[in-house]
Amino acid sequence: MADRLSISFRLLSPAGLALLLSSALSVQAADLARVTSPDGALAVIVQSQHEGRLSYRVERNGDPVIAPSRLGMLLGDGRLERNIALTAQSQRSVDETWEQPWGERRLTRNHYNELRTRFSEKPGAGRDYARQFEVVFRVHNDGVGFRYEFPQQAAMEQVTVQAELTEFALAHPATAWWIPAFEWNREEYLYHQTPLKEVGTAQTPLTLRSDNGLHISLHEAALVDYAGMNLARGDGDVLHAALTPSGNGAPVQRSLPFHTPWRTITIGETAAELAESSLILNLNEPNALGDVSWFTPAKYVGVWWSLHLETETWGTGPRHGATTANTRRYIDFAAANGFRGVLVEGWNTGWDGDWFANGQAFDFTRATADFDLPALARYGAARGVHLIGHHETACAVSHYERQLPAALELYARNGVDVIKTGYVCDAGDIQRQDRAGGPILREWHEGQWMSNHHLRVVRQAAEKHIAINAHEPIKDTGLRRTYPNWVSREGARGMEFNAWGNPPNPPGHEATLVFTRMLAGPMDYTPGIVSLKGRNGLPLRSTLAKQLALYVVLYSPIQMVADLPEHYAQHPDAFQFIKDVAVDWEQSHVLNGEIGQYVTFARKVRGGEEWFLGSVGSEQPQTLDVPLSFLDPGRRYRAQIYRDGDGAHWETAPFAFATETREVRSGDPLRIALAAGGGMAVRFVPLD
Amino acid sequence: MADRLSISFRLLSPAGLALLLSSALSVQAADLARVTSPDGALAVIVQSQHEGRLSYRVERNGDPVIAPSRLGMLLGDGRLERNIALTAQSQRSVDETWEQPWGERRLTRNHYNELRTRFSEKPGAGRDYARQFEVVFRVHNDGVGFRYEFPQQAAMEQVTVQAELTEFALAHPATAWWIPAFEWNREEYLYHQTPLKEVGTAQTPLTLRSDNGLHISLHEAALVDYAGMNLARGDGDVLHAALTPSGNGAPVQRSLPFHTPWRTITIGETAAELAESSLILNLNEPNALGDVSWFTPAKYVGVWWSLHLETETWGTGPRHGATTANTRRYIDFAAANGFRGVLVEGWNTGWDGDWFANGQAFDFTRATADFDLPALARYGAARGVHLIGHHETACAVSHYERQLPAALELYARNGVDVIKTGYVCDAGDIQRQDRAGGPILREWHEGQWMSNHHLRVVRQAAEKHIAINAHEPIKDTGLRRTYPNWVSREGARGMEFNAWGNPPNPPGHEATLVFTRMLAGPMDYTPGIVSLKGRNGLPLRSTLAKQLALYVVLYSPIQMVADLPEHYAQHPDAFQFIKDVAVDWEQSHVLNGEIGQYVTFARKVRGGEEWFLGSVGSEQPQTLDVPLSFLDPGRRYRAQIYRDGDGAHWETAPFAFATETREVRSGDPLRIALAAGGGMAVRFVPLD
Repeated sequence: MADRLSISFRLLSPAGLALLLSSALSVQAADLARVTSPDGALAVIVQSQHEGRLSYRVERNGDPVIAPSRLGMLLGDGRLERNIALTAQSQRSVDETWEQPWGERRLTRNHYNELRTRFSEKPGAGRDYARQFEVVFRVHNDGVGFRYEFPQQAAMEQVTVQAELTEFALAHPATAWWIPAFEWNREEYLYHQTPLKEVGTAQTPLTLRSDNGLHISLHEAALVDYAGMNLARGDGDVLHAALTPSGNGAPVQRSLPFHTPWRTITIGETAAELAESSLILNLNEPNALGDVSWFTPAKYVGVWWSLHLETETWGTGPRHGATTANTRRYIDFAAANGFRGVLVEGWNTGWDGDWFANGQAFDFTRATADFDLPALARYGAARGVHLIGHHETACAVSHYERQLPAALELYARNGVDVIKTGYVCDAGDIQRQDRAGGPILREWHEGQWMSNHHLRVVRQAAEKHIAINAHEPIKDTGLRRTYPNWVSREGARGMEFNAWGNPPNPPGHEATLVFTRMLAGPMDYTPGIVSLKGRNGLPLRSTLAKQLALYVVLYSPIQMVADLPEHYAQHPDAFQFIKDVAVDWEQSHVLNGEIGQYVTFARKVRGGEEWFLGSVGSEQPQTLDVPLSFLDPGRRYRAQIYRDGDGAHWETAPFAFATETREVRSGDPLRIALAAGGGMAVRFVPLD
Repeated sequence: MADRLSISFRLLSPAGLALLLSSALSVQAADLARVTSPDGALAVIVQSQHEGRLSYRVERNGDPVIAPSRLGMLLGDGRLERNIALTAQSQRSVDETWEQPWGERRLTRNHYNELRTRFSEKPGAGRDYARQFEVVFRVHNDGVGFRYEFPQQAAMEQVTVQAELTEFALAHPATAWWIPAFEWNREEYLYHQTPLKEVGTAQTPLTLRSDNGLHISLHEAALVDYAGMNLARGDGDVLHAALTPSGNGAPVQRSLPFHTPWRTITIGETAAELAESSLILNLNEPNALGDVSWFTPAKYVGVWWSLHLETETWGTGPRHGATTANTRRYIDFAAANGFRGVLVEGWNTGWDGDWFANGQAFDFTRATADFDLPALARYGAARGVHLIGHHETACAVSHYERQLPAALELYARNGVDVIKTGYVCDAGDIQRQDRAGGPILREWHEGQWMSNHHLRVVRQAAEKHIAINAHEPIKDTGLRRTYPNWVSREGARGMEFNAWGNPPNPPGHEATLVFTRMLAGPMDYTPGIVSLKGRNGLPLRSTLAKQLALYVVLYSPIQMVADLPEHYAQHPDAFQFIKDVAVDWEQSHVLNGEIGQYVTFARKVRGGEEWFLGSVGSEQPQTLDVPLSFLDPGRRYRAQIYRDGDGAHWETAPFAFATETREVRSGDPLRIALAAGGGMAVRFVPLD
């Protein structure tokens, strides 16, 4: 691991300060500071505008990417925007390579130049003190991160952030892929593709393709003890930070010192470059948990799809899914096919009646009468299978937190080392109760309080060597680097929408997710519905081959084998790939991709020599030619190809499916013929 | 005054309730209630959608205007949106005519059908009680108002409104005229004209022209003890209510019972119909002050334009504008020309130094040493002239409120019966201090606290028989009907931008204001800059004739004669119209108009027989033919016409100006030839 660090820091002389103050307060825009990426292509320039307003801009090879964009805050003691003067600046460079305990790639290079700017605001508007703050910019070759830092200062002990004034003024018109913020169904919307000018208020990551071809993703990294940032469009092509509200006052309340999350601008020539960027992870703090070898990336099965098909129920009764007998069946199925985990939803008390309206009824330490947790844990252990825990809160989150220590203890005792948590309720309806019996406040899924809740769960779970997979979660901002037991999450329209319809996910959904939601991090999409049918026979808009490709395309260190055992029995040829595919990777490469159209990944298994390829398309048939240049040079591989068969089409012939085996070498061409709604999956097994 | 009232109220039977509950909770949308306008053209339909969600839609002659749009709230005790059942509905009709003490017209007809719907929500999500609320719809021929009402109920004493979920889903694509919300310069932006799809977050009133030609204005009426409503665009053509935040928790905190302001949808075939609508006033409560004959609509002059030209100063010193001698000069000028008021800005202590940063320094009872208030009051009284008061707060609003009783007393004692208040600071930076020495909170200009502040000022001023003209105000929502001493306000880009530039108001600005900002109510635009020059000779984008037309076009019961006396001396012909024009009206008619292009008003003086016409254009020369059908039939009039002269153009020949006199009768044609940046003003004096 290389690690090079150089620091220069320059405090301004009083004369220099006076000059800057006077220039900062003049009407002319003046460049105050500048920092470039290690390759020199990207530059961030900090400038002072009219009346001492602060802004930044981003250029790429001299062309504007982000036009001058405001920096500032609306704080509890007043707007922090005007009359701001630079008092110091420093730069440093970092080039290090770090190792993910699990992930899309083992080694990640973190190479950037950092600019730290220190500012002071003239007192005024009811304040007799000068507020001090810093803005730190890190410029990588693949994008920019910046954050505000508020150092300790005598006059400000506490601060409330009523609004963050940060802007992202895109320098060129662009096409945007986005989902609306503050809507009832949280993150579970189909992505809109509109001109940037037609974005309303959007969640991040928000993906843009500029009219000049550049690809840009706006997001944030390391969302800790702060409100999630959404993007509200102002005039034209300008997006403003819009913090998620709190039910307890201002969106953010903090003691000094504190810093905001990183505001991130990932920039790539191609969509594929966005998907390969490690900017979000690089901007997070290193692993805080130490050895996490107790977490094992793995596939899992479970009592889940049947619930969404409504052939089994969460609540007790004649069709209760989480029975001892049914769970044994899943354990047997997992053991027979090499899957490590068995998820069981509906195992605990509280599901009977209207659980959506009564999360306070959930008991996380009491199983239903027909579910013998210890016996099943032992039964699984004897077969190398671990139960996967399930904590659905229905948003009674404080109620859940009060039970959390005992609930974790129960699971740890029974060998449960992954828990799927759930926060099903409408947005803004999280129940926060700071003390038992106290008033219940309402919080948003992505507010400051929930940012802390999730970390409380993750940290306590880590102590028990348990990993967390949150559904209806807060958005991913790369915290898996710091807390590697936060292994996956939902946070988008997943497979269950294909059970429900209204409508099912369209054929291009996954090729959109790769370049939008998944720029944030792993998703527990739960692929592998080989029956290709939802509730009441509702057809998935997918071919059989595509269900296999999803295991390579949609990264998660835990991947569900989501269909019913009896359905896999009907498709043994396809099922073979699901058994074979890896979940943890030494390398990952995006071979091609256009947002919402198609994408192809190649990944090399961690701790092995096999490669896997997955490609998914969209509405129309497509043919992609890729060179197998990722394969290790000089070696021969047996390519086990799982592809759409002749005439395959998600609507008319979804089961048209073919397998073939071919010997290939690095650099050989591969033609990927994707049917409408189709996909292709390949396993490359070294022959020598 | 006619007054017809019929009421029918129908409580549903338990069986009917059960039916409605079951239908409300089914997946199918079901119409629950319907009400039409008196002329039958407009219909509002309340419907229940998926999972008992509530929505409304608006049709006009059977065509959709507002597609099904959500109703609901995010309250402190949880989201109020699902599982809502209609429990009762009633209708009544009202047809009354009421009289404005002053205004655009003396008599206003208030004719509508009202639907009152009562709803109950199924308990759940941490609540063991069923929340009750009502939605009341009033359907007039010219639009719709609706509001939420929360009656007294045992389980809810207090409520916090964290968000209002109300939507306005426009049924047709439209062009929008809008200014952004939550921006630092409050309401002082040039209007954007964009497709509705490109609206970001906008203030109200927001004006739309549907692709089918219909004109629509979205706004609110009677904003009392509630946060101002902005409109954030969701997907496509859907706008969402976005309440102005508070610095003290949720946007709105109220005790039950309470109701929201009216959410209004004014609908007209033409832009002119929007400008003629009285919907906003009709939805306000009647006059709460009784006899307000102590307020006199009038023109005023003052120490103002010179301050913006920077030839005089607010602060003391050699160029102090508010000196006794200078004010005497203005009193003489007013007396000589029949103007009732003299505004003097900078008369009190606190302006010296950086007043913008130090509103706490303002003293509203202490004049500067060079300004003798009692002597000037006496000097004016002897000449029939009243000083107009000035209270600039620089947003130290609690500081101002503490001085208000004494400040009003001082003015009342000196015959000051109109006060211009000012709230100059960046948006969100209002200083609220609930007790002297306590913490200073920050509020927005249009938040709940300021809605109450303005009414505190208006009510206290009314007790002293003083009228209020608020600058940097909260938006107008028609409260002048209830508090007729709230006579005018700013709340848009006014004339001072023509002094400053950056940029000056464009030629089409006023023809835009008429159909946007002024749909809310009177504006103190301060017209009449006959010098046509701002600071350092910066040209106005106006001809001379247009400055006269503004007195008819831009309604306000107090109209400033804003230029310097010495400038009027240079244009005696134009000045004659300014002396002659009325400020209070028996009738007002919009003869024609296209948003941002042109508009022509005809108004008949209150308590007299004269008519006035004003017409303004925009960038390009335009010719408008209007029949003088508004004139009283059978009478002859001398039309004194003030028009653009040959070759007039705001840029090249702004002073090209002509007057002519002609005898006309009702129905005669009038050709209005507007130059680029031009206008025309006419006085019609009856000859018999």
